Amino acid sequence: MSVTNLPPWAPAEALSGASYSAAELSADGDRVFLLEQRELPVVERYVTLTTPAEVAEGIRAMVVRGAPAIGIAAAYGMVLAARAARGEGAEGYLHALRRAGALLDASRPTAVNLSWAVRRALALAEQHAPRDGEQRFQEMAAFARALHRDDVAACRAMGRLGAAHLPDEGAILTHCNAGALATGGYGTALGVIRAAIEAGKRLRVLADETRPYLQGARLTAWELHKDGIPVEVLADSMAGWLMQRGEVKAIVVGADRIARNGDVANKIGTYAVACLARHHGIPFYVAAPWSTVDLATPDGTAIPIEERASDEVGLIAGKRMVPEGVRARHPAFDVTPASLITAIFTERGEATPGELARLAG
Amino acid sequence: MSVTNLPPWAPAEALSGASYSAAELSADGDRVFLLEQRELPVVERYVTLTTPAEVAEGIRAMVVRGAPAIGIAAAYGMVLAARAARGEGAEGYLHALRRAGALLDASRPTAVNLSWAVRRALALAEQHAPRDGEQRFQEMAAFARALHRDDVAACRAMGRLGAAHLPDEGAILTHCNAGALATGGYGTALGVIRAAIEAGKRLRVLADETRPYLQGARLTAWELHKDGIPVEVLADSMAGWLMQRGEVKAIVVGADRIARNGDVANKIGTYAVACLARHHGIPFYVAAPWSTVDLATPDGTAIPIEERASDEVGLIAGKRMVPEGVRARHPAFDVTPASLITAIFTERGEATPGELARLAG
Repeated sequence: MSVTNLPPWAPAEALSGASYSAAELSADGDRVFLLEQRELPVVERYVTLTTPAEVAEGIRAMVVRGAPAIGIAAAYGMVLAARAARGEGAEGYLHALRRAGALLDASRPTAVNLSWAVRRALALAEQHAPRDGEQRFQEMAAFARALHRDDVAACRAMGRLGAAHLPDEGAILTHCNAGALATGGYGTALGVIRAAIEAGKRLRVLADETRPYLQGARLTAWELHKDGIPVEVLADSMAGWLMQRGEVKAIVVGADRIARNGDVANKIGTYAVACLARHHGIPFYVAAPWSTVDLATPDGTAIPIEERASDEVGLIAGKRMVPEGVRARHPAFDVTPASLITAIFTERGEATPGELARLAG
Repeated sequence: MSVTNLPPWAPAEALSGASYSAAELSADGDRVFLLEQRELPVVERYVTLTTPAEVAEGIRAMVVRGAPAIGIAAAYGMVLAARAARGEGAEGYLHALRRAGALLDASRPTAVNLSWAVRRALALAEQHAPRDGEQRFQEMAAFARALHRDDVAACRAMGRLGAAHLPDEGAILTHCNAGALATGGYGTALGVIRAAIEAGKRLRVLADETRPYLQGARLTAWELHKDGIPVEVLADSMAGWLMQRGEVKAIVVGADRIARNGDVANKIGTYAVACLARHHGIPFYVAAPWSTVDLATPDGTAIPIEERASDEVGLIAGKRMVPEGVRARHPAFDVTPASLITAIFTERGEATPGELARLAG
């Protein structure tokens, strides 16, 4: 693993559509570049990874996060596995790819895009295992790049759909980071806001800081500010008050997994925002690529909710904020029931949560 | 100003009823001791102050915080003023006390206890200004100590009333710190919980960490853990999710100002908790001394909401969490409308918010 302070890719390699990117594959397909999101907003720094195990660890440790972005990173991890197994026969290749897939799939539990990307990579591996090693590797790289490109295209498509629902002016509240940094580029929730602004709407963004990882403060504010979109940060506990005062016109968030019935798992705190939106009569929208929809999960109760370490809440910037001997709770996600969601935007179309399954068609 | 790592008072001086205290006056009335709450939970450290200006700065900078505690600290600040003006005639004395009172009163705007304590001290000053300097000083010290003792007694009284409303077992959620550290001792919201536990109820506490100052993580968890009361900390955004899962049996919070109609100003985020409580059908209680009730304020819209510095949200433990050039919002309080409050407990009795004024008697 190496670290650089500038994007390490050649301009032609980057698929994100921006000067920054959560995850990219080198032109030679031999290196995965991840923006070290834990160091934002203070420094923009990229790590270069060369093995699937390094990519899995990068996902686990949240160097890269965001459901679509970790799906893309996992696909690129599979490319590294295919490259390393070029000299293997069909069986050795499949064994290596399955091992890498298992490692990547186990790195985080809630976002379904991760296992979706790994499953697709493994399907390709089974199909092309008998072929030449170099060819398999190139096909895996083409697959992963297409997955990345499709994700950016999906963000732009759902952005156009969602933009039409936003008001012509005012403040849109979002939780966590469902932006370029959480996807292949452009973003899901922030893609909707970007598209609305590109369409001439005069919007500004209120970004929940999103404890404990502060993705809103550190990432959403960073990417919007970089792109010249007006943004203010608030502590999560302030959202209700700003709604009471009429400052929030709409809410748009991303998703880590959407169940068949329209229940949405997303970053912890999303559920509270949805309750507050309902209390104040403010529309609450979810934007996510179709890869986030898990038709095999009937409803939110079947979604596994990752519990992370207590110290990720109790220590901030290395400083102890919770006394020794006291546990801090750390569910990393929550489930917002379909009944609190106004509409869901995907690249396949928009739907109320109850009608989501018809987009599967 | 000096700093010590042990309570600097002689045992007989402390009025808090615990081994720790937010504010105490020395036996000689020449020094005010404040627990440096910004350094908790890592170190328990006390600062010794000798002028009203130092006390005002301690309140402004949040060395001491919590509506009742800053009222007591201000009263002790007035004692320092009375002591320094012992050699003055009636006019010089009144001038000095009014100057100190203005300084202390201006240190923070939302909590009404501060101006209430200063107003009472000034009324005493006007009454005894013509007397001997030493006598005036001793009377001011006696007044301030009585105010402190009354606050502890009020906490115990409202605690007994409130305790009867809590369930026999389960988790009680609280926001910010309305405990011994926010009062003369024992606490308002935490006093209710302490009294319930003393009465044999098997309760545990879920403490919202309470961004940005983390009073829940740092202070509520510290004092409850010190007193052997089970406590867990959660990020503010997790409260809704724990309510959805049925883990929260009741909510008790303190108050910084209660308007005549029962609207309650309290730490930012309280309003969101009250909305979530309503959404989940969980009782939401407020505990506060009568000095927090401001009958001159008709309703919540007339309560001034302190806006504090953006960097108090944007920087944590000295580390930048919000990008340079992006503003972080920082309303320090919000107003919970009477309609969301199940009952208010004071030392004068309990009431629904709408019936509060009848306790004025």
